[in-house]
This record gives sequence, structure tokens and C-alpha cells, in this order.
Amino acid sequence: MSLTAIGTLAYDSIETVHEKRDDILGGSGVHFGVAAANFAPVRLVGVVGTDFPDAHMDLLRAQGIDTLGVEVVDGKTFRWAGRYEADWNTRHTVDTQLNVFEHFDPKVPEGYRDSRFVFLGNAAPSIQMQALDQCQDAEFVVADTMNLWIDIALDDLKALLRRVDGLVLNDEEARMLSGESNLILAAQKVREMGPRYVILKKGEHGAFLVGDDVRYAIPAYPVDEVRDPTGAGDSFAGGFMGYLAAAESTEPRTLRRAMLYGTATASFCVQGFGTEGLIEGLGKHKRSQIESRFNELLDITSV
Amino acid sequence: MSLTAIGTLAYDSIETVHEKRDDILGGSGVHFGVAAANFAPVRLVGVVGTDFPDAHMDLLRAQGIDTLGVEVVDGKTFRWAGRYEADWNTRHTVDTQLNVFEHFDPKVPEGYRDSRFVFLGNAAPSIQMQALDQCQDAEFVVADTMNLWIDIALDDLKALLRRVDGLVLNDEEARMLSGESNLILAAQKVREMGPRYVILKKGEHGAFLVGDDVRYAIPAYPVDEVRDPTGAGDSFAGGFMGYLAAAESTEPRTLRRAMLYGTATASFCVQGFGTEGLIEGLGKHKRSQIESRFNELLDITSV
Repeated sequence: MSLTAIGTLAYDSIETVHEKRDDILGGSGVHFGVAAANFAPVRLVGVVGTDFPDAHMDLLRAQGIDTLGVEVVDGKTFRWAGRYEADWNTRHTVDTQLNVFEHFDPKVPEGYRDSRFVFLGNAAPSIQMQALDQCQDAEFVVADTMNLWIDIALDDLKALLRRVDGLVLNDEEARMLSGESNLILAAQKVREMGPRYVILKKGEHGAFLVGDDVRYAIPAYPVDEVRDPTGAGDSFAGGFMGYLAAAESTEPRTLRRAMLYGTATASFCVQGFGTEGLIEGLGKHKRSQIESRFNELLDITSV
Repeated sequence: MSLTAIGTLAYDSIETVHEKRDDILGGSGVHFGVAAANFAPVRLVGVVGTDFPDAHMDLLRAQGIDTLGVEVVDGKTFRWAGRYEADWNTRHTVDTQLNVFEHFDPKVPEGYRDSRFVFLGNAAPSIQMQALDQCQDAEFVVADTMNLWIDIALDDLKALLRRVDGLVLNDEEARMLSGESNLILAAQKVREMGPRYVILKKGEHGAFLVGDDVRYAIPAYPVDEVRDPTGAGDSFAGGFMGYLAAAESTEPRTLRRAMLYGTATASFCVQGFGTEGLIEGLGKHKRSQIESRFNELLDITSV
């Protein structure tokens, strides 16, 4: 079953303690899409400038992403620059140029509207809502958000939360949105705002899924060399939603397995710069490599 | 099979954002012992001053702890004062009075020496070694340590590590001891210093066991109200070693289950001040309450 994702296509400039790379392909829509396409066809809604080369559009299509929903408008593609400290957990945004994303008016193509699985990548909640309004067959909607929107667009975010099935957010954002320092209570309070499921992303400490009918905690896959954590959260969401869409199910057992697949997929992301880990890193036998880490994770978490 | 533990008996003064309590019973030997005694008889080696009342000695015995190895010497019992910030992860030591622990010369009673399972609670590595020298039948020795000893007694600690089977330490200590920021590599390097097994304690993020024949990650039990995290690490170690001693096994499958029992046991510790969570909190049906959380943790971590 197909999956529609709304997200950014961007050029990222990333500095780690080991390396610096400028203008590499990134963005929430790209990372999510490349990750999810390992499991199910992905329909991507986003916007790029005229500087976005055909080669990159071809690259996305070659991964299994439908780019009909990627609008090209006059101007430059969204750009983000960031720097990671040695512990990887501290990220500094050096520069953000919204460019064509500033006036993004998401248009979900007619042919995408029967998607039952929808992912709303991090964006202003009003934009996420506009996109969701066009997905009339959506049955399982998961949104991402960030501290900025909790700060400056809380009412919009609350309105959106009443309409989504799941929210992915990191522990700091969960504490901020709920006003609760205890993560278990924070997740509970966020669920009371609307989403049946809350997925807490904890970086190197893994992720935690909370719903009425399921609680499932998973550690991160033990990667011994992180090169660039950018996109890890979106790759996780991609593996998670991609697996659900392929399974055409959101049963608790499927949700648990989807958490494992999200974790396995994200582990490849952080081993390369930008999309390298998911594209070149996974190489030709993508799905079997993901299955292999899925099985390792099963072993690491089973008694 | 019995278990010998070397550790402190102390009076702690603890301040959290909600409460402050002075001079409550604590110490690594106490928390470990009270936790482990839910699974197997514990033989405790430590030292107290003449201010340690019979009532507290009786309390320990009533939990199933043999106190023959607790020496009473002239002077005051070890005292520690600490304060936690609202996130629980930041702990400030306000005051430390070693008192009788300053010249602690551990004497393992003759009757303890056939213990095959030995836990060396956090102390100067030279003291841990002195105790270990007297445990001639030890087959599975696990030590705890802290940043202080990595700083001021690294050679002693390295000598000790060559003689232990397992080391429990938190992520910061693992990074410090190994010089590696990546936790997976850090655990690997610590294992190269001697212990076959390294157990990384990550507080609210759970724990990770690494050995040649096993890797097992477990989240913390989701406690919705933490009252005092003091002793959580020792309670974890107590549940872990207590279960192993009772099972008389250190097979990978038993080690995994011991991690679950350690986690379940520690969750009760943090719900009360000092030893309250493990004693009053667990009440009359201690083992069945622990089993119940063991089963919840199984559910939270299973696909």
C-alpha cells in the first residue's frame, strides 16, 4: 500500500568533528523517502528551487520515490547548515535559508490522494494541516514536529494533534510540549492532546512507542562509527511508516516490528554523510542488509 | 548459591526538588544487599561506626542479609550528602564524610569464603582487591567503580580489572576509562582491560550488557514517579547478581534474564527514599511484585 509523505528537500552543509561537507542532498522528505522506499512505494510532496538538478530528481526516483508531488518554483532550494559536537547529541544550527520553502503551499497530486498512510514531516503545523486536508483517504497519519513550533505555533500544533494518529518527537520536545519532566508522564500528556500513539526518539538511547494498546521500547542499533546523525529521526520514521504501509496494518504487533525496522534503517543513515548511508551504504541488497540488522536487534533485545 | 558483597553502609542526606531527608540508611552494600536478598541469601562485608543502631542491623538481617561481615569500629558511620536537579540525571555531592570507611580493611569471614558469586561495590580498587583476595572460591566476580578511581587510582583499577568477570559502570565512566566517546567502542576497550562482561548503566535509558557471547540492551522500567534515584545502580547490580546466584549460572540466557531482574528491582528503589522503595515499597510479596515488573518489561521489549 502506498504512502504519501510531506517534507523538505534541502541542501545541507554539515560539520562534524571529523569532516565538513557543503550542499549535500538532505531534508526531511528526502531522508524519510529514501528510508521508507526500502519497504513501500513513496509519494513525496515538497518544493524545490530551479537550482535542484534533474540528476537529484532522478536519484530519488531511482530509490522508488514518486516525485510528481515535488513542485519546482522560481528561486533557491531550502538550505540548512549545522555543526555537531563530539558527543553527537549537541547540534548547533549555523544557518537556515528557507528560500522556496518559505511560501510552501503543499499540493497533493490527485493520484496521491488514495494513500492510507501519510507522514507529515517537520514543518509549520499550518502547512502540515493544509497537506493533510488534501489526503482524504488517510487512515494512519503520523506527524513530526520540533521545538520551534511548540514555541511559536502551539495553537496550530494542538489543532493538528487532534487529527493525527501518531506523533514522533524527541525527549526534549516531549517535555516542552507537555510541561512534564518525567518522560512517561510527558508521553501520556501528549497522547491526551490527540495522537493515539507517541513515539519518543532518544537518539543513541533508542526509541519508545506508547499507545493504549502497546508500549514498546527499543535501543538504538549499536553503531561503532557515527559519521553524520542528520536525518536519523526521519530515516527512523521512514522505516517505521514504510513497514506499516507495506504490511497494511497498524496492529500492536506490526507497530512493534515497525519500530525495529525504523531503528535498523536509521542505523545505516548515521553511518554516512547525508543520504550516503542509506543509498551507497546500503548498496544493491538494501532490504537484506536491513533484515540482517533487524535480526541483530531482535537478538540484542530478546531474553 | 550464596553471594558475597563488599560495600558501604552509610547514612545519606538527600535533597530532591520535592523533598529533603537527613541521615537515612543507605550505601552501596545496603542497596545491593536489600535488592539481591530478594533472590538469594547475601553475605555482606562492610564497616559501620558505633552510631549504627542495632535496629538497622536487625533490619538488614530481616531482609535476608548475613551481617557477620559487617565490622563495628569506634567512630562514626560513613556519611554522604547529595542533591538532585529536576531532571534526576544531574547529581551534586554536597558532602562526604568517610569516617570509619576511611581506614576500611575488609575482612571476609571464614564462612563467606565459599561464595562463588562476589560483588565488589564501589570503593578504592585496592580495597576491592583486598576483599577479593579473601574470596578464594569466587567464580563470577563483578565490580562497580566510579570516576574518582579512574582519576586517582587508575593503576590499581587496571590491576583489579584483570581479575574480575564483569564491570558495571555508567556511560560517562565508560567513556572516561576507555578514552572513547562511542559507547560501543568504549565497552569494547573496557573489556580488553580484563572483564569478560561490561554492563553500561544509563539511568533512565536503561542498561546494556556486552560480552563475547552476548549483547543485550534493556530500557529502564517506565516509572512515572521517581522519588530518589540514590542506590538505583546498586539495586540493579543486586537484582542482577542475586538472580545469577540463585540460578547458579552465568549462561548468556541467564545473564539476559538477570538484566531484566536487575532493572525490575531498581525500579522499586527509585520510587522511594533510600531503601524505602525496596523495603516498604515492595512490602510483603516482594518476589511476586518483582516478577510482575519482569513480565511487564518482557512485554515492553518483545515484538
